[in-house]
Amino acid sequence: MPDLSHHINRKSKARQPSPLKDIIKFMGQDGMISLAGGLPHPSLFPVEHANFSCITPLAPLHGEGAGTRPAGETADLMIGRGVESGGLDLTQFLQYGSGAGNRQLINLCKQLTDKVHAPPAEYDCILHPGNTNAWAKVVGLLCEDDDYVLVEEYTYPSAQAHWIPLGIRAAPVSADADGIQATHLRDILEGWDEKKMGARRPRVLYLVAVGSNPTGITISAARRCEIYALSVQYDLIIVEDDPYYFLQYPGYSPTAQSALTFKAKEPSDFIASLIPSFLSLDVESRVIRLESFSKTLFPGLRLGYFIANPCFIERLLRATEVETQDPAGLSQAFILSLFGNWGVDGYLVWLQRLQFQYQTRRDWLLNAFFANFTVLPAADSPIPDAQGLVACVKGRNGQDLRPVFSFVDPGAGMFVWSKFYFDGVSRFLEIKGEGAEDPEQEFAGELWKAWATKLVLLTPGSYYHPWQGKGKTTTKARGAEAQTAHFRFSFATPTAEQIATGVERVREVVDRYWA
Amino acid sequence: MPDLSHHINRKSKARQPSPLKDIIKFMGQDGMISLAGGLPHPSLFPVEHANFSCITPLAPLHGEGAGTRPAGETADLMIGRGVESGGLDLTQFLQYGSGAGNRQLINLCKQLTDKVHAPPAEYDCILHPGNTNAWAKVVGLLCEDDDYVLVEEYTYPSAQAHWIPLGIRAAPVSADADGIQATHLRDILEGWDEKKMGARRPRVLYLVAVGSNPTGITISAARRCEIYALSVQYDLIIVEDDPYYFLQYPGYSPTAQSALTFKAKEPSDFIASLIPSFLSLDVESRVIRLESFSKTLFPGLRLGYFIANPCFIERLLRATEVETQDPAGLSQAFILSLFGNWGVDGYLVWLQRLQFQYQTRRDWLLNAFFANFTVLPAADSPIPDAQGLVACVKGRNGQDLRPVFSFVDPGAGMFVWSKFYFDGVSRFLEIKGEGAEDPEQEFAGELWKAWATKLVLLTPGSYYHPWQGKGKTTTKARGAEAQTAHFRFSFATPTAEQIATGVERVREVVDRYWA
Repeated sequence: MPDLSHHINRKSKARQPSPLKDIIKFMGQDGMISLAGGLPHPSLFPVEHANFSCITPLAPLHGEGAGTRPAGETADLMIGRGVESGGLDLTQFLQYGSGAGNRQLINLCKQLTDKVHAPPAEYDCILHPGNTNAWAKVVGLLCEDDDYVLVEEYTYPSAQAHWIPLGIRAAPVSADADGIQATHLRDILEGWDEKKMGARRPRVLYLVAVGSNPTGITISAARRCEIYALSVQYDLIIVEDDPYYFLQYPGYSPTAQSALTFKAKEPSDFIASLIPSFLSLDVESRVIRLESFSKTLFPGLRLGYFIANPCFIERLLRATEVETQDPAGLSQAFILSLFGNWGVDGYLVWLQRLQFQYQTRRDWLLNAFFANFTVLPAADSPIPDAQGLVACVKGRNGQDLRPVFSFVDPGAGMFVWSKFYFDGVSRFLEIKGEGAEDPEQEFAGELWKAWATKLVLLTPGSYYHPWQGKGKTTTKARGAEAQTAHFRFSFATPTAEQIATGVERVREVVDRYWA
Repeated sequence: MPDLSHHINRKSKARQPSPLKDIIKFMGQDGMISLAGGLPHPSLFPVEHANFSCITPLAPLHGEGAGTRPAGETADLMIGRGVESGGLDLTQFLQYGSGAGNRQLINLCKQLTDKVHAPPAEYDCILHPGNTNAWAKVVGLLCEDDDYVLVEEYTYPSAQAHWIPLGIRAAPVSADADGIQATHLRDILEGWDEKKMGARRPRVLYLVAVGSNPTGITISAARRCEIYALSVQYDLIIVEDDPYYFLQYPGYSPTAQSALTFKAKEPSDFIASLIPSFLSLDVESRVIRLESFSKTLFPGLRLGYFIANPCFIERLLRATEVETQDPAGLSQAFILSLFGNWGVDGYLVWLQRLQFQYQTRRDWLLNAFFANFTVLPAADSPIPDAQGLVACVKGRNGQDLRPVFSFVDPGAGMFVWSKFYFDGVSRFLEIKGEGAEDPEQEFAGELWKAWATKLVLLTPGSYYHPWQGKGKTTTKARGAEAQTAHFRFSFATPTAEQIATGVERVREVVDRYWA
């Protein structure tokens, strides 16, 4: 296994272990009296027990049942003080923790990791308070100010909002329906000119590799192998931010999906059906995987875990001690207690239900696309080099199909990323003719407002443009395709009716501009 | 009110509001269909309700009662899904939050702030996940790399562990029994030589102003006014990290304390009995107060709040959005629900119980000092210029009193800070004679190990030395008093018996070295 310690940045290298923690090893000695600790006294925590009423993995979902649930549908998680209460002792979750998190919970995270990813190299785990914080800590571990970070062509805005103020810029890698292109990644790395770019060659590749936010794209297995090989060749660290990993769906079919009913697979078959993570390919320990329970249990937990090589984990723990400490104790107790009741296999059943639920929602949205537009495979459409499918409307003569947007069936996650084509849209040409600096973004803004006025909201694609510096924000300066702009559709929250009506409203505005 | 925006550092100034949050204002419109949000669907959160069984503010403490508690002693906090369940709707605490925290909880924090501190200038509040993180965010708001930060002569190590890797150094202000000395603070600021120090004059004063960790000292009311006036004169921001604010005690008396029994004051009398915070003096909005529930409810909550001027709060919110997001939802729900049951006045009764409990523990420790040593007021002791009291042992002839350590009766908090005098201790002289680089710290280390071997642990004073740079770590280089070293005694956790036995063990080792 290669020594990757040269990836640790200057500030992270300078962190010292807390001297206070050194005393802890003495505390365990028989008969030791400690006048050293600064912990508040546990008799002064005013809680006696916590009780969470949860559903069982196969019970009707919240809002589906009426009134009281039968016993078989509920998992009552009772966590009391003291060992005699059986199971977990709440007291330890009320007190300060170690920084890494509860040992039992870390072991559970490792058990899940082994079962789902079977990492081929040595790794370690510590908890973190959600992937937002986890990514901030990874930037604090690996990036120097003014570095470049490799990201997908369209990237998660909160992740870069953290590093833009540090002077860090994005080196975006172009993508197709299989995810970022290894050939382009190689070109960037191979051709990196430190002088011209004013920074060293990027060392960090940040990916939401499954159901990317915003593109919905999942990097294919073959592409993953190519990318991993490049990470070895060019000494990259891959940060795999993967909240949607368990939300992978079979391909959409406009006719078949309504017949589906939920049936859980055997846990091992379920795991085998999922695309291999970068972690599972990681023979050199150069993947840092950010795991979260926000999408699989609930976001308010603010709890996830890092999976990384022990050398990185040790540094992340040092940062955790002085930046956040343990995730909240009630969240830790909740998860341990839920897994105590459900078991890991119960959790794997629950994940399949989530998968099914979000797949159904994905289908609602794509159904609405098919209901409102003429949707053609790109090759058969007016834009044959587009990715995936192209949604068209009829032209003024009622005959010609005019392309409106292309999209890729999202095999995972919560989003459909759409690329709108403005070629020949008269209002766009008008704006362009007026000499606007960035006519694509100006028209996209007008379109967005027209939709909002019609009472439907999409997310503007500009939110997901990688930050390449002040001079590179317009469509032209970014090198993006002229006469196009993107919007993100989310299918996570609205009802089937809202989706149907929402897409209808989208189409009404399109009709006005495209007809 | 002065414009303090020049205090915001370069990176914090560069933070942009999340564009995603802009859409939120459209979401509330009647009939709006949002395909823009990325929140997971709340029907897929597997929790139905959370129930916390707490004690009432005056009930026997955990571990004191036996078996089932009578109804009057318990507060059952039931938090269900949906509004029909009455009170709080758990769903909102399971979902992603706004970054600032739940609006109701922020209002509660403001209510507490107005009641306890009545800040004279405009302020705002947002939640944070504990004071460790809060301090990290304040450093991220105010400090540039390689700045100096003004701190107490002995300071909380975790706070500086965060900024040492950034190149930040401490400018320690000497203290007496009334806290840091305004005269010394003025000297530092007045005489600051940018060239010599290699950094601009400090702009941030970090204080644990009540029951300081480690010194136990509370800055007196008069001293506070002097310090605040200097902060105005020299344009300082005061960061008031105040977890022990409600743990203020009457002075210790070796004879009277055993007669005490708990009696709650009226809430307003209780508040009036507490020393005025810096916030309460803050006519210019230059105090950032870090509030925590870790010491008053329990640390596992990982929840507290910032109180600061609206301009700083806005920047702290920007950092929160990309660094941590909201504190954990179960913690937020717990606190709101507890206050719903107890009321603010019930909480103020509970705080008095805590105060009483820790005061009793303080007395246990000082009783043990009096039982094991001859304790004299400094003026009557062999070290008349010491602060507070001096603990002595009899010399070899059984007559002369030899000073061992001085300490100040801690009027607040959880710690007694002791200054040990090595003058004439033969083992110390031996080490010094051998030409040790830092004989004080070397002997202190030997003493610490002798105690650990005797099965009693104190915290070495060296943990609390402000970091002034690599060349300034020895007793001499720090400019500390020769032939002395410090140790911290904590009285928060051990039982009365453990404290009695622990101090006896301390004395036995002292006897060996000092006799």
